[in-house]
Amino acid sequence: MAGNPERRAALVDAGVEVLAREGARGLTFRAVDTEAGVPVGTSSNYFTSRDDLLSQIDARLHVRLAPDPDVVADLLTRPKDRSLVKALMHDLTARATHDRTGYLGLLEMRLEATRRPELRASYTQSVRADLEEGMRFHHEAGLPGGDETVMVLYLAMLGLLLEHLTLPGVLEGALPGTGVPEALVERIVETIVPATEPRGTGPH
Amino acid sequence: MAGNPERRAALVDAGVEVLAREGARGLTFRAVDTEAGVPVGTSSNYFTSRDDLLSQIDARLHVRLAPDPDVVADLLTRPKDRSLVKALMHDLTARATHDRTGYLGLLEMRLEATRRPELRASYTQSVRADLEEGMRFHHEAGLPGGDETVMVLYLAMLGLLLEHLTLPGVLEGALPGTGVPEALVERIVETIVPATEPRGTGPH
Repeated sequence: MAGNPERRAALVDAGVEVLAREGARGLTFRAVDTEAGVPVGTSSNYFTSRDDLLSQIDARLHVRLAPDPDVVADLLTRPKDRSLVKALMHDLTARATHDRTGYLGLLEMRLEATRRPELRASYTQSVRADLEEGMRFHHEAGLPGGDETVMVLYLAMLGLLLEHLTLPGVLEGALPGTGVPEALVERIVETIVPATEPRGTGPH
Repeated sequence: MAGNPERRAALVDAGVEVLAREGARGLTFRAVDTEAGVPVGTSSNYFTSRDDLLSQIDARLHVRLAPDPDVVADLLTRPKDRSLVKALMHDLTARATHDRTGYLGLLEMRLEATRRPELRASYTQSVRADLEEGMRFHHEAGLPGGDETVMVLYLAMLGLLLEHLTLPGVLEGALPGTGVPEALVERIVETIVPATEPRGTGPH
């Protein structure tokens, strides 16, 4: 295994580009080499298999799409109410739309996971960890609503991002006066997250 | 254009199989011919182009995944409350999980739509029409909540089906005591749809 970390990162990012542009079936070592502008054969020195490449793409996208800790720390100085949940969801939406290629890569990876048991196992673990982290974060921050609120909000945001990033025209104008995605994010949070005092903060 | 409608339907269904199994990039006339067990060259007599094939797959999946009118008519004899919305969402979930291949085909088509403007235009139109039909149905049936309720419910169900059909292990057990998908569907409806009397039934 070659060990140049910068080259490895560049190859993984090239893999994300190929994944989003060509679909999972187009993701070959050769296509990654071409995308990265390196000699054919380079990727095979960095990844033991296609599953290994996919797993490194997952890890890399996790970093690329992660919230900025400073932004989160700053948001957490605000009152722990529904407005703060809106701000957090705006941040999530902005990250996904800003790195649309990365988010589309994750969607391709989901579909590829239906075909590859090894990828399904590792990717399930990483998405589940994100969901549980979201529940833990919401609880510890004292935000309104419990695990069930986080779950339903998670699913609605997943649906929103899928729709907005693949078929934006479906949502645009569907609720008159509700811009997409910003105002729609506000409607989602108002519908799902209670306006009342924090609850569900007991031990669980 | 050859005109045998049964053969056309069989070719389109073969296209759905290829789409779900191989991904959009694997969808070629030759792969469809092989899947359908017909001589190579047959598909090119039935479809003018790959976009034409994709558009016929969209139309076909619309029929395959549509609700059974008798089931809907029967449900509409019940009180127009939140329980009825649950029953309708159970029916949607059952249709999608029963025809998992068809639903995965739709997800592949969304990703392919990010690459093909012609497909994006036609597919956007058909998904938008479904969303508007959902709003019209909800309103005319006098179900609780307005267009905004339908929109948020639509997005949460889209997220649920995406997650459940691609990475089922993510949701399984994430809310203790809440089975997936059935009990989770109930939690989604309880969170999003008001328990009160029908509202939002004014003109709009």
